[in-house]
Amino acid sequence: MAATRTETDTLGAVEVPADRYWGAQTQRSLANFPIGGERMPRALIHAFALQKQAAARANRRLGALEPAIAEAIDGAAAEIAAGRLDDEFPLVVWQTGSGTQTNMNLNEVIANRANEALGGERGAKSPVHPNDHVNRSQSSNDSFPTAMHVAAVREIHARLLPGLTRLHGALAVKAEAFAGIVKIGRTHLQDATPLTLGDAVGAWAHQAKTGIERIETCLPRLYQVAQGGTAVGTGVNAPAGFAEAFAEELAALTGLPFVSAPDKFEALAAHDAVVEASGALNTVAVSLTKIANDVRLLGSGPRCGIGELVLPANEPGSSIMPGKVNPTQAEAVTQVCARVFGNHTTITVAGASGHMELNVFKPVMIDALLQSIRLLGDAAASFAERCVDGLEADRDRIAELLGRSLMLVTALAPHIGYDAAAKIAKTAHADGSTLRETALRLGLVSAEDFDRWVRPEAMLGAGR
Amino acid sequence: MAATRTETDTLGAVEVPADRYWGAQTQRSLANFPIGGERMPRALIHAFALQKQAAARANRRLGALEPAIAEAIDGAAAEIAAGRLDDEFPLVVWQTGSGTQTNMNLNEVIANRANEALGGERGAKSPVHPNDHVNRSQSSNDSFPTAMHVAAVREIHARLLPGLTRLHGALAVKAEAFAGIVKIGRTHLQDATPLTLGDAVGAWAHQAKTGIERIETCLPRLYQVAQGGTAVGTGVNAPAGFAEAFAEELAALTGLPFVSAPDKFEALAAHDAVVEASGALNTVAVSLTKIANDVRLLGSGPRCGIGELVLPANEPGSSIMPGKVNPTQAEAVTQVCARVFGNHTTITVAGASGHMELNVFKPVMIDALLQSIRLLGDAAASFAERCVDGLEADRDRIAELLGRSLMLVTALAPHIGYDAAAKIAKTAHADGSTLRETALRLGLVSAEDFDRWVRPEAMLGAGR
Amino acid sequence: MAATRTETDTLGAVEVPADRYWGAQTQRSLANFPIGGERMPRALIHAFALQKQAAARANRRLGALEPAIAEAIDGAAAEIAAGRLDDEFPLVVWQTGSGTQTNMNLNEVIANRANEALGGERGAKSPVHPNDHVNRSQSSNDSFPTAMHVAAVREIHARLLPGLTRLHGALAVKAEAFAGIVKIGRTHLQDATPLTLGDAVGAWAHQAKTGIERIETCLPRLYQVAQGGTAVGTGVNAPAGFAEAFAEELAALTGLPFVSAPDKFEALAAHDAVVEASGALNTVAVSLTKIANDVRLLGSGPRCGIGELVLPANEPGSSIMPGKVNPTQAEAVTQVCARVFGNHTTITVAGASGHMELNVFKPVMIDALLQSIRLLGDAAASFAERCVDGLEADRDRIAELLGRSLMLVTALAPHIGYDAAAKIAKTAHADGSTLRETALRLGLVSAEDFDRWVRPEAMLGAGR
Amino acid sequence: MAATRTETDTLGAVEVPADRYWGAQTQRSLANFPIGGERMPRALIHAFALQKQAAARANRRLGALEPAIAEAIDGAAAEIAAGRLDDEFPLVVWQTGSGTQTNMNLNEVIANRANEALGGERGAKSPVHPNDHVNRSQSSNDSFPTAMHVAAVREIHARLLPGLTRLHGALAVKAEAFAGIVKIGRTHLQDATPLTLGDAVGAWAHQAKTGIERIETCLPRLYQVAQGGTAVGTGVNAPAGFAEAFAEELAALTGLPFVSAPDKFEALAAHDAVVEASGALNTVAVSLTKIANDVRLLGSGPRCGIGELVLPANEPGSSIMPGKVNPTQAEAVTQVCARVFGNHTTITVAGASGHMELNVFKPVMIDALLQSIRLLGDAAASFAERCVDGLEADRDRIAELLGRSLMLVTALAPHIGYDAAAKIAKTAHADGSTLRETALRLGLVSAEDFDRWVRPEAMLGAGR
Repeated sequence: MAATRTETDTLGAVEVPADRYWGAQTQRSLANFPIGGERMPRALIHAFALQKQAAARANRRLGALEPAIAEAIDGAAAEIAAGRLDDEFPLVVWQTGSGTQTNMNLNEVIANRANEALGGERGAKSPVHPNDHVNRSQSSNDSFPTAMHVAAVREIHARLLPGLTRLHGALAVKAEAFAGIVKIGRTHLQDATPLTLGDAVGAWAHQAKTGIERIETCLPRLYQVAQGGTAVGTGVNAPAGFAEAFAEELAALTGLPFVSAPDKFEALAAHDAVVEASGALNTVAVSLTKIANDVRLLGSGPRCGIGELVLPANEPGSSIMPGKVNPTQAEAVTQVCARVFGNHTTITVAGASGHMELNVFKPVMIDALLQSIRLLGDAAASFAERCVDGLEADRDRIAELLGRSLMLVTALAPHIGYDAAAKIAKTAHADGSTLRETALRLGLVSAEDFDRWVRPEAMLGAGR
Repeated sequence: MAATRTETDTLGAVEVPADRYWGAQTQRSLANFPIGGERMPRALIHAFALQKQAAARANRRLGALEPAIAEAIDGAAAEIAAGRLDDEFPLVVWQTGSGTQTNMNLNEVIANRANEALGGERGAKSPVHPNDHVNRSQSSNDSFPTAMHVAAVREIHARLLPGLTRLHGALAVKAEAFAGIVKIGRTHLQDATPLTLGDAVGAWAHQAKTGIERIETCLPRLYQVAQGGTAVGTGVNAPAGFAEAFAEELAALTGLPFVSAPDKFEALAAHDAVVEASGALNTVAVSLTKIANDVRLLGSGPRCGIGELVLPANEPGSSIMPGKVNPTQAEAVTQVCARVFGNHTTITVAGASGHMELNVFKPVMIDALLQSIRLLGDAAASFAERCVDGLEADRDRIAELLGRSLMLVTALAPHIGYDAAAKIAKTAHADGSTLRETALRLGLVSAEDFDRWVRPEAMLGAGR
Repeated sequence: MAATRTETDTLGAVEVPADRYWGAQTQRSLANFPIGGERMPRALIHAFALQKQAAARANRRLGALEPAIAEAIDGAAAEIAAGRLDDEFPLVVWQTGSGTQTNMNLNEVIANRANEALGGERGAKSPVHPNDHVNRSQSSNDSFPTAMHVAAVREIHARLLPGLTRLHGALAVKAEAFAGIVKIGRTHLQDATPLTLGDAVGAWAHQAKTGIERIETCLPRLYQVAQGGTAVGTGVNAPAGFAEAFAEELAALTGLPFVSAPDKFEALAAHDAVVEASGALNTVAVSLTKIANDVRLLGSGPRCGIGELVLPANEPGSSIMPGKVNPTQAEAVTQVCARVFGNHTTITVAGASGHMELNVFKPVMIDALLQSIRLLGDAAASFAERCVDGLEADRDRIAELLGRSLMLVTALAPHIGYDAAAKIAKTAHADGSTLRETALRLGLVSAEDFDRWVRPEAMLGAGR
Repeated sequence: MAATRTETDTLGAVEVPADRYWGAQTQRSLANFPIGGERMPRALIHAFALQKQAAARANRRLGALEPAIAEAIDGAAAEIAAGRLDDEFPLVVWQTGSGTQTNMNLNEVIANRANEALGGERGAKSPVHPNDHVNRSQSSNDSFPTAMHVAAVREIHARLLPGLTRLHGALAVKAEAFAGIVKIGRTHLQDATPLTLGDAVGAWAHQAKTGIERIETCLPRLYQVAQGGTAVGTGVNAPAGFAEAFAEELAALTGLPFVSAPDKFEALAAHDAVVEASGALNTVAVSLTKIANDVRLLGSGPRCGIGELVLPANEPGSSIMPGKVNPTQAEAVTQVCARVFGNHTTITVAGASGHMELNVFKPVMIDALLQSIRLLGDAAASFAERCVDGLEADRDRIAELLGRSLMLVTALAPHIGYDAAAKIAKTAHADGSTLRETALRLGLVSAEDFDRWVRPEAMLGAGR
């Protein structure tokens, strides 16, 4: 039996491991929610610690906390924000829907840590009380959604946008490198008119770039924080000016333009900004799925597929087929995207399920959102580094396929009409012959005209 | 201005087009729900008419309706069930969540039609009253879910199972026809060890067959009908034995083994059986997506793709590219499946959103379910008839690709070990040479052994 | 047998009803896709006609069509855009994934109609040819996505934004009207500290307003049209400057700021802008679900629920329970939202499934998107008019509940501490006594202090 | 710098931490997939070890492995299955879609551990080679899906079915306990006719019981294992009879009725059985959402809600509102269900995305499925123990509400007609008077008849 100490909350006494900073409510939650094992994301815990720092500073500024108490809270919270007390946050996602227990986990750890720093002892709740001081002017109902926004924004800036930017850059480099390679186009997976490999890769780059814009479009509403609404949005028990002072302190602490939410009632009762952000992530996942699928289709082979692209060989591909190399980065990306689609369903359902003054699906929403942000950012960066950077064009294969295609017949249509051109293509296809042979044999075009009109490099668009 | 007559309900008088059989509540609903334009599905209306017939017969049998009244109701309902009064059901899906207004639409049309048959006039509510007689022993709350189950089951039998059976048959025929064609396998879209084309098509056939089983697995719970629960599940205002008598009459009318639901409270408050059925449809859509995607991948080309399969040319493929033929049936199928996935989300959310004694998402649930059933059935049948039946193997192309593949090296691994085999494959790939040349040059296997061990037709499995 | 005429396409001759304007490819599609019955949305057909008008004008301007031909096309297309030829567009959604057959339906109807106007006859393809003239400088691959964007944008402006604006206005009026009514708050569905009814309704209004902003945020990317990319994005067979000329003509025709898409390859191969827009609609549906759920919860009763709001009685609520009135508008709204969630899944899957130069899920994407747009717009307007406008506060009930609540104890916490305040609340709850009685009896606060501190109207926030 | 040793694979040499059992391919995967941090689920690793044991035994039985080698593999695998080497499996879910790297992780750890046991050293690949011996007769392509099914089935039996059975039992006990408590019913959240509290809880119990049946319905297809298909389904490199021998060994090892899948090609290329199982989980989540929502609605209050049920107070509910108790178990359940809905979307998309001979979304599918299984099982058990078991009926409150309701008027309808009954209800509602007063005042029924007809306990159904 490990040593314990006694902590109390309004329901009574609870034994807590003696070497832990958490208190009665955290311990109670551990016992009450033996569900899954997914801990509240560390990114949320760190963001929550920043929320506690900013709250302590705002309280001090407004005279709602004595400087010594505020400083002790600030110091303990800073340690948490820096990731130095991660093991003190054992609670799982599947708890109360307001995240109250995680808020209390913060309050308890900070109080005990601060009291220790001030010469007190764990469990004393004095001089720093978890509710009366650490949680001063706050409720879980405004603090948790504030931490949600802070965590999401920080992860977007730290992981997602860099990952997408990295991917966009890698694709843009390849689009440039492949600009001169004329290849057959494919629509409906069927041979179509030509384009350059640079055009195809450029479309992917455009998707990546627009994805960045879509994420940025959501940020203004994520910068709005609920803090100051306290229990139901009115701000009961918070001093006048708290919401604004808090937002200023938070912005200063994080270097990010957080502002006070214009409607605190909405900010507690709904998390539409999270649903909106997840919608943007969903769109990015759609884009990445398309890109990764194209990469593996164009890289299919090596001898019995399309084989226009050569992908880097990062690892042995098969436990049974020697020498096999697989598009594993593309597979990781598309699996990540499938997860993001699912997270979006989760967030949508959860976001729609609030009642009256509170949405009580907060933990599952932020857990899913942070996972989507991280997975997309990581996967984009890994895909860029381990796949896109190393993509090579198989110019011989590309030229071989281009030469075979029947869809160059399209260049004849403006000259001899759609119906005559179709006749040439269909005849050549049936005979297994070339377009040129067939066109001449059918007498629908002269050799000179054919050679003048049917040139892949002239089918790349009038504006080129 | 069209002529009208005055109908009344408990909120007062309403003007109704004189030539219509519907009454006040239907008219009120038309005015109150100018949303979208999707009418309640005809399959539901017809099923609802069968419900009214069975209810009239059960009421008569139990002495709850006079024979003449019951017969008049029965006759009018039979006309509706036969589709002869479709225009009398103008209400949209987006109405009250219990479907009360569609139930009243049935009650009103039947009452007016029956009164007319009995020599009365429209709007008189006498001798047949829409609530007191047509709706006798019933509530919308048990009648509508009964009609939901009846409609779903009938459509499954009339459209879905025949469509899937047709598809399974077509695939099984092709699997048999292609049984002797050895082709290169592909995993991760990369060349792998060989199999027969019959094996590949047989896997699709297995999916189709198992899909049929999955649908059949759901039927027992769809055969359970809510009727007899009336307003909240207790059966208030229905005579003893009504639920059972109704189920017998319904089974007799439809020739399908409907039974009375074991828990009427559950049958009104939840529609888990509909969610479950939608889950089975979702699985079938997953299967069909895989099959249709494979068909278009294997049929990609005609000259710059994989090209192992030749698909029927049903229509010109392009408005700009002459002679193009596209896998349009596969595209219709995969679009249908995307819709089914979405319908499943709709049904899941709706099914989870009931409160206490009633789920009030009934219309949207049955609308989505019936659409999924019909689309999958129709698409499977069309895909079978217009694509699978006409599939042809391009044996030359298949042989050409098989001959090129490096993955036949797998056959060497049991003899010379994985690592040595991998060396051969990687060297051949880098040099662009054949496996045989490379293996001999590297001195890892003799010519005799190579020819004995590396035979595609011997790589088709020990059990063949 | 109805009279027919013979039309031809590159696959041969087809019999077409003599009285129809459509041609061979439309007729072929009717035969080839007996799936479901959902016709291509009229909003898309009308938008497509505008696309054809703008294309004819751009072609004329660039010298790619003779003026007489261009004018004839323009005139016929204008009739379609005005909805006068709706019956000429019989094709279903479940067809080729590029929408080629609907493009050809437009091309054929316009050609026949134009030829008739020019004195020719149906089926002659002369002087106006469906491919060579009506489709001049175009492909289905750029025309269909252009029509998708035009249809979506027009419906957003015509239906969705007006509906949301109507709803926002109605909610804002009620928020103002209810501003002085102090009521109990509820978090976790449990009694909490008070707020005003105006605060609660104001949060809904804020959601509606932000929803409008979210939709508007997507518009810039929907204003970008694919036209000019033709078959694969290169613009093959379109004259230089066509994309820009087209966008100008389209903008002039519609009065909307359409521009040429910056990357045509992306605009054919992906429909991320549609996925993004659907994400915004999904967020709006999340908001409306919350609002509608709150309305029915607060209006639950009339005698055994919460009963703080009185909803308009629009129709009799029950076929079995006399006098019942139900929140039917809220039910229609939440059912619509469940459909929108499902449509978003459909659009997400479809949007992620493009391959190389073309996404072939175009019809299902635009069908689902237009349905979501229309349903949300219609439902918001109907909910505003038939529910929100008529909402009344039951002030007696609200006051009764407020007086009972124990959560006013929160006002004591800043004065006597969280733990002492909790003791009062728990004791009062256990005894069934009032807070005041209990507080005095426990000796934790004086009567004077209690009356000074515990005043609901003082718990509405420091900033009020 | 920690000490390392050199391991090799077919791509070359890799430095591996000296104290780890894993080899080159595992190490390479660690470097190549710095995505998220979600490790492959332990339940999958343990199941995979059982697969390796069964394979070793089948190989030995068929003479494909020497007894000493087979025993060494068996022993090492047994340690993994027992959870004693969990730290040796560091790979994340976001890797190759075939799970090859996790298969190799197993092969490498087992080989090194077995070699050590046989007196060899780590990295020697001798006498036990990871590919040639541990992976003998296997491919990742059949082994990984076999492990998927084994893991899913074991978790269903170990966690899900016990959890649901626990919940069903708890609900059945309460249904029995509450059988005599007549309460007002609610449809559309509006007052309706009465039922007993036991009826309401019994409906939940019926949902739980049917959920168990739904899960059991999927099991037969999960018992079918892919093993024996090897690389593409043909069974290349596996001896005749391997599939059957393996299934027998697996069944013996696990005590569960695993059988060889009837179509190995399908078993590698599609995971429809996983999608189907996820559909059943989705339905269970729909049921649990309904149950948990009802519990919190009926428990809303304590003074300003419905308050018919009293929920256990497991923890302090609010960090700001003293004495608040919240329905936290219901919140955990509904959050879990939102996650399960999302996982189902993920699994559906992933399951639909296989190509030709292999589905390469295996890791994300099994990760999501195992999470859903565990979360539902854990949440059901916790909800039963910490909420349902402690539910109490507030009989006074229930009686008070029942007495107030107007919907008892329904009992008059069969006697005086729907319209007259509606008049009574509407008048009483408008006047705030009782039904009895109003009925008598309107002269529509005598006092004797009223008292005889309007008895809640007589409105509980004819069959009671």
